[in-house]
Amino acid sequence: MSQPTQPHLTDLGLPPALADGALRVVALGGLGEIGRNMAVLEHAGRLLVIDCGVLFPEDHQPGVDLILPDFDYIADRLDDIEAIVLTHGHEDHIGAVPYLLRLRRDIPLVGSQLTLAFVEAKLREHRIAPLTLAVKEGQTEQLGPFECEFVAVNHSIPDALAVAVRTGAGTVLHTGDFKMDQLPLDGRITDLRAFARLGEAGVDLFMVDSTNAEVPGFTSHEREIGPVLDAVFAAATRRIVVASFASHVHRVQQVLDAAAAHDRRVALVGRSMVRNMTIAADLGYLTVPDGILVDAKAIGDLPDDQVVLMCTGSQGEPMAALSRIANQDHRISVGPGDTVILASSLIPGNENAVYRVINGLTRLGARVVHGGNAKVHVSGHASAGELLYCYNVLRPRNVMPVHGEVRHLVANAALAVQTGVPAENVVLAEDGVVVDLVDGRARVVGAVPCGYVYVDGSSVGAITDAELKDRRILGEEGFISIFVVVDSTSGKVLAGPHIQARGFAEDDAVFEDILPQITTTLEEAAHGGGADTHQLQQVVRRVVGRWVNTRLRRRPMIMPVVVEA
Amino acid sequence: MSQPTQPHLTDLGLPPALADGALRVVALGGLGEIGRNMAVLEHAGRLLVIDCGVLFPEDHQPGVDLILPDFDYIADRLDDIEAIVLTHGHEDHIGAVPYLLRLRRDIPLVGSQLTLAFVEAKLREHRIAPLTLAVKEGQTEQLGPFECEFVAVNHSIPDALAVAVRTGAGTVLHTGDFKMDQLPLDGRITDLRAFARLGEAGVDLFMVDSTNAEVPGFTSHEREIGPVLDAVFAAATRRIVVASFASHVHRVQQVLDAAAAHDRRVALVGRSMVRNMTIAADLGYLTVPDGILVDAKAIGDLPDDQVVLMCTGSQGEPMAALSRIANQDHRISVGPGDTVILASSLIPGNENAVYRVINGLTRLGARVVHGGNAKVHVSGHASAGELLYCYNVLRPRNVMPVHGEVRHLVANAALAVQTGVPAENVVLAEDGVVVDLVDGRARVVGAVPCGYVYVDGSSVGAITDAELKDRRILGEEGFISIFVVVDSTSGKVLAGPHIQARGFAEDDAVFEDILPQITTTLEEAAHGGGADTHQLQQVVRRVVGRWVNTRLRRRPMIMPVVVEA
Repeated sequence: MSQPTQPHLTDLGLPPALADGALRVVALGGLGEIGRNMAVLEHAGRLLVIDCGVLFPEDHQPGVDLILPDFDYIADRLDDIEAIVLTHGHEDHIGAVPYLLRLRRDIPLVGSQLTLAFVEAKLREHRIAPLTLAVKEGQTEQLGPFECEFVAVNHSIPDALAVAVRTGAGTVLHTGDFKMDQLPLDGRITDLRAFARLGEAGVDLFMVDSTNAEVPGFTSHEREIGPVLDAVFAAATRRIVVASFASHVHRVQQVLDAAAAHDRRVALVGRSMVRNMTIAADLGYLTVPDGILVDAKAIGDLPDDQVVLMCTGSQGEPMAALSRIANQDHRISVGPGDTVILASSLIPGNENAVYRVINGLTRLGARVVHGGNAKVHVSGHASAGELLYCYNVLRPRNVMPVHGEVRHLVANAALAVQTGVPAENVVLAEDGVVVDLVDGRARVVGAVPCGYVYVDGSSVGAITDAELKDRRILGEEGFISIFVVVDSTSGKVLAGPHIQARGFAEDDAVFEDILPQITTTLEEAAHGGGADTHQLQQVVRRVVGRWVNTRLRRRPMIMPVVVEA
Repeated sequence: MSQPTQPHLTDLGLPPALADGALRVVALGGLGEIGRNMAVLEHAGRLLVIDCGVLFPEDHQPGVDLILPDFDYIADRLDDIEAIVLTHGHEDHIGAVPYLLRLRRDIPLVGSQLTLAFVEAKLREHRIAPLTLAVKEGQTEQLGPFECEFVAVNHSIPDALAVAVRTGAGTVLHTGDFKMDQLPLDGRITDLRAFARLGEAGVDLFMVDSTNAEVPGFTSHEREIGPVLDAVFAAATRRIVVASFASHVHRVQQVLDAAAAHDRRVALVGRSMVRNMTIAADLGYLTVPDGILVDAKAIGDLPDDQVVLMCTGSQGEPMAALSRIANQDHRISVGPGDTVILASSLIPGNENAVYRVINGLTRLGARVVHGGNAKVHVSGHASAGELLYCYNVLRPRNVMPVHGEVRHLVANAALAVQTGVPAENVVLAEDGVVVDLVDGRARVVGAVPCGYVYVDGSSVGAITDAELKDRRILGEEGFISIFVVVDSTSGKVLAGPHIQARGFAEDDAVFEDILPQITTTLEEAAHGGGADTHQLQQVVRRVVGRWVNTRLRRRPMIMPVVVEA
């Protein structure tokens, strides 16, 4: 099997100007990672953004709250943006919208009713009232030079859309995130008939979700979870706690239905869970059986065997309800005989946190049901088998796998090639790689700088990778600071050395050894009068660094301050 | 199903004195975690230690190299220790032996030939020459009041042993780590016939590996991997790199055999891989086909399709060969058309690191075969189905699940109860919990303090949990240090404030705002002359802390130093 050749970012220069009548595609996030999805299409001098999401940090990015797509590429072309099309309401597709709208508030947001409701709720927290255009599957809207047709797709949130973008250069079909559940709870399937029609008319570039491309076969039906929940509910004799994602309307629907069937009331726990489910119920995406919801504060009044708590924290997030319940740091308590269900996937990287929660709940006496011991979750993404259907129905001229780490993009590319797409028409790109569609052929023509933009507290983009490296050193080794005042004329030490260490794990007494040596070396260096404070600081750093390294075999950060008085 | 009640450590006081003729069991590690396995048996005033391993840190324990069992409980009874029985040669069973022998060098080590060879190699690095007693399956040794019979068990390292300990108080059977592969590569099965004989004679306490107790069914045969390796080797057209654990002799054997079948030579890469496989080959546990091994430095002389590199780093360890190859930071390079096989489990918590390596290798053009897309690993531990066999053959009077997190111990306890062991005879204990076997009944009688002992560089036990909390704050938020010299009489600021920040991610200019306020507030506080430097430092901390929190919404560590001159 021939494999598409992977472009190497380092080999790519800046792209040439876009040829007249051609279409350019640049992903500013989502290619090489699961998250911060954002694609920019350019045609006839205008831009169309598809999705604008956030990425959650890994443990080598300590203290980072969120990671944004890099807006640099479009920063001086904001006025060229026709609209932001939002395929669905997950954070990795809408989470960065407030940060882009801060740069230009009146960019129209285009999406389905539920998607817009979720993003508007988020924007209210940022005090932004956006321009919006609600669309439905089957609808076509002309957005500048981009004719956008919206297509229903099935995903782990209702009301998700794919978008077909027709331009003078050809037609792009972008799937957003999707799967092909043939028996979805809401009956809204991925519209394969529309895919077939688009394929007949000709799809020039197919941008397709790669998340599950490595997974052989087919993704299970969401409705397979119902009977499992039912069995767990039937066996439960005391409280039931279910944790899932705060946006998973269908999962919550199944929990409400199971609760109704077993004469239990449900309390929603967690701010995002309450907010999203209120929106979903108001808009008719969630059917709430009469009288089933109860305020979380009132559950103490109900017998344990009539209670279900529906909460967040299924990924072990330390501040979410479930972790705090497991740590006995929440007004809701769990004890012997209670049942806890983790009805969500285990996102790679969260294993330790999730198992800590499971162990904590188990220690309290609860029975914990999770993906490791029961089928209480199905994926929201198309597996290899479903992707093959799409390729065969669409027969796209060019393919660009999106939404995935490199391994996912490469696996998806291989599927395209297996169905007969010529390898040279399968574009493997990473963030910032520029792909031009010219004369019906998609080709990598260069790359633009595209970095990670870190959000920490109120700062956006201030944290650099160098700063994160400092944090990793501080976190692993701690630091030693040394403060000395020297006489500017004699070079004599007037005060200090004062040593402070944190995260360094030695008794302060350990430093007694080194104090005289710092003073001696410093006074020797200062004696001639030729050394400035910066040089004296280097002297201190060297003395302390060598001592720590040989004596304790450690490499903490060393921060000398020499002040002349 | 009745579930054994979990003892709560916090509810347990110190244990009473051990009754005459009774047997006491205290685990100092391995109960509530996967690693640092160590059990102490006491009878007739003497102690027997079973295993003495290390635990590897998680990401909430930054900068920690290793975690040891807590030796405090036996620190003043070292002379009472008859021996350390080592069940097999994995780090989580032998890794802490050097630290215990530092406290008393002449404690005899008892174990199989390969186990002792591995521990002796490790002790040489610590410059310790131990007393050893090599034993074989079937052999019985009297170690003080403990009559120890050794029983063959099958595991992911050769020459593993269970140990039956007969005392005046009854017989304990400790499995070590084991599985029940019925067709092992070396023909050495877990000796179920011996288990049956011991069961007939009566096992009073069964201490049994819980690692896979949550996994339903049976663990696959090691030999199922051979055909998969063979198929991957057959399809490979260029270099093959295989990564696995440096102690997995049978896995390496299968790689050597596949290489021989496909006319390839094998280079061992990585210090621990070379050391362990040299030992295993010398002792006859690894059969090396003639002329198949080649020095890693010589592989450049061979055509790519005749090369296999057998290396470490299958867990994404940043300093191991495979990570460095993926980062192009190793003299061995991987490129388009090469095949990389990760022939090992993915230990929970390592997902991000392993996927980073897989993505790096994929980006370089390699085909990566791993547990997610091929059967290139089987577990080394007995699953629920095998554990049921053991319970039914042994019919133990009391059961104490060992080696696992709480969820594993609880699952294993449930299996025991299902086979008919009375729930009140199934002891769920955590580290430090004291279990006494009196009159044939095992009961929790108390607990001794048992903490985590962290190794960092040359320091053992100096790092506390408070220190780790400091590290986490430093790692996530960075720090700001402020140095000021004030006149001891007038309270005027003579030098400073000097502000230094690291991991804090703001331009130094941001501090210009706050400098005057520090000076003013400090001089006001110092003016009366009643404030000492500690109080002045608190003033500085408050001013800077409030400003950082409101202005930047961050909480870095703040380290003020005020010096009077």
